[in-house]
Amino acid sequence: MGTTPYLRLDVAVLDRNLAVMADAARAAGVALRPHAKTHKCPQIAARQLAAGAVGLTVATIGEAEVFAAAGFDDLFIAYPLWVDTDAAARLRALGERVRLAVGCDSATAAANLAGLPAEVLVEIDSGHHRSGVDPDAAGELAAAISGLGQRVRGVFTFPGHSYSPDARRAAASDEAAALGRAAASMAASGVPAQVVSGGSTPSAEFVASPLTELRPGVYVFGDAQQVELGTIGFERVALTVAATVVSHAGGRVITDAGSKALGADRAPWASGYGRVPDLPEARIVALSEHHSTIEWPGPLPSLGSEVLLVPNHVCNAVNLAEEYHLAGGGTWPVAARGRNS
Amino acid sequence: MGTTPYLRLDVAVLDRNLAVMADAARAAGVALRPHAKTHKCPQIAARQLAAGAVGLTVATIGEAEVFAAAGFDDLFIAYPLWVDTDAAARLRALGERVRLAVGCDSATAAANLAGLPAEVLVEIDSGHHRSGVDPDAAGELAAAISGLGQRVRGVFTFPGHSYSPDARRAAASDEAAALGRAAASMAASGVPAQVVSGGSTPSAEFVASPLTELRPGVYVFGDAQQVELGTIGFERVALTVAATVVSHAGGRVITDAGSKALGADRAPWASGYGRVPDLPEARIVALSEHHSTIEWPGPLPSLGSEVLLVPNHVCNAVNLAEEYHLAGGGTWPVAARGRNS
Repeated sequence: MGTTPYLRLDVAVLDRNLAVMADAARAAGVALRPHAKTHKCPQIAARQLAAGAVGLTVATIGEAEVFAAAGFDDLFIAYPLWVDTDAAARLRALGERVRLAVGCDSATAAANLAGLPAEVLVEIDSGHHRSGVDPDAAGELAAAISGLGQRVRGVFTFPGHSYSPDARRAAASDEAAALGRAAASMAASGVPAQVVSGGSTPSAEFVASPLTELRPGVYVFGDAQQVELGTIGFERVALTVAATVVSHAGGRVITDAGSKALGADRAPWASGYGRVPDLPEARIVALSEHHSTIEWPGPLPSLGSEVLLVPNHVCNAVNLAEEYHLAGGGTWPVAARGRNS
Repeated sequence: MGTTPYLRLDVAVLDRNLAVMADAARAAGVALRPHAKTHKCPQIAARQLAAGAVGLTVATIGEAEVFAAAGFDDLFIAYPLWVDTDAAARLRALGERVRLAVGCDSATAAANLAGLPAEVLVEIDSGHHRSGVDPDAAGELAAAISGLGQRVRGVFTFPGHSYSPDARRAAASDEAAALGRAAASMAASGVPAQVVSGGSTPSAEFVASPLTELRPGVYVFGDAQQVELGTIGFERVALTVAATVVSHAGGRVITDAGSKALGADRAPWASGYGRVPDLPEARIVALSEHHSTIEWPGPLPSLGSEVLLVPNHVCNAVNLAEEYHLAGGGTWPVAARGRNS
């Protein structure tokens, strides 16, 4: 299909993943606003909306620009943006053509949002300890933002501590509790949250009140992390990196898909640098930029043969490629690749 | 200079690094053929040649095509290529315009090289245990390649096990010993090695006989790994990722340079996900795609201020960007970004 290494996308599996998450959101009574940073692809975003998503989440102004240009008209930049003069001009242009919301976790950053055509969601920390204010401080911040004349749409969090073995259910519980405290704090401050937004792929199946909106990203493709966390099985992995076996040195399989194709992500609990879906016992024990070293039980695939590898973290693997090669033929672009700002 | 996150290159430090390595190679009596996969930039390659490099090393046919198009005429693809019909056509086109060499570590792969306008270097394993044959088997493979009518230029290895604390000198010693055995094996097989090629940035200062050629890559910029391995100090780091402070959540510094800007590399011995050169005591304790979380002793830099971060592994960080922003103004392209095949 392509010259290895390349991204191979099984659209049938993708569509099943989209349907499963859309059904879960409907059953839980929450809106689905999937995170497009994972796929960066208008064709996939269109399928998400067709499956019932209410809009898209993105990480950067640049990603918002790509999806706005592709006709998507309801975008949430789920990030505590620092808005300088240049960013303000870009947000103004965006806000004139789409329904736009941005994240904020400080009154200092909020001051730069005054007058922009964007609603604001207060970011809280629900246990991942990255950005976001303490849940009980959400009301104070919401009132400050509202006092600038900006409409506060609600509150959001990312329960990233769900990315750990056996932590998925607890992280969802932390998330719901923290968002509940934040919503109460905002109501007490006279700025009630219309939208209570959370979610990650590992925690999504445990979504509970008071969430009104879910923002998973990775679920579209799945990846080795999701398999090893127990979120999905290999049959739900829609995206693989096709690689060529270039060496049998040391009785192992060396392929041409290294960290510049798979990404270098490796969580402390990961079994290796990715997985081989056709041989779950295999272990990717080392990764260089253009080599993966695989301990391969049983007969080795012959030199020159193509093998499929599952990256640990699919978002970073996708960001290294220009296009998806569809299993049924054709390509889709990674249109927002590299749009980091 | 740019919108964060962006690559900031100090050309004065770069030039000093180029001179230091060129002087070291001259003093050791070896040719310098730097690995261009690190920078992927014709402007930097031209400075390497001006400082005395004899040619360039690249990792892929695609990188060779970019540098050939930019006028570089002596290229070694230091990789055990699997050459299918498409790759053969590309190598034929390359070999007509430049002096070309490729790597090989099996008779099976060698069979695909027959008739191509490329010299071959036999790859051996000197202790990194990735690709490459046992040193004592180099002669047999060289004879097989020679028997196909291909000219064997010599032997090469990558002492990647130099990337470990206190291993730099030992890896260089392993490398020299392994290359010595390989050269003896080739001489005994009637295919003497004209070129005996090795080297990595951490091991380069210990280069010794019988090496005739050195192929370091990272030395042009330096990175956090080189600092933590003891190869260089921060004053030798030429490339940083400029980031904006977006949050002070949890009393820490959160910037907008995450794994999509710094790369996700983290060796087991690394202190974190990169370093802060202006504050060596700071620790980058977590990395998301668009966030770095930094434990920052002392007063925090204000929200909206720009800080400079050093990636752990600069090759992967460079591969995520389209251009270098020069500290003195202007930009250079990352011309071979993403050329993985």
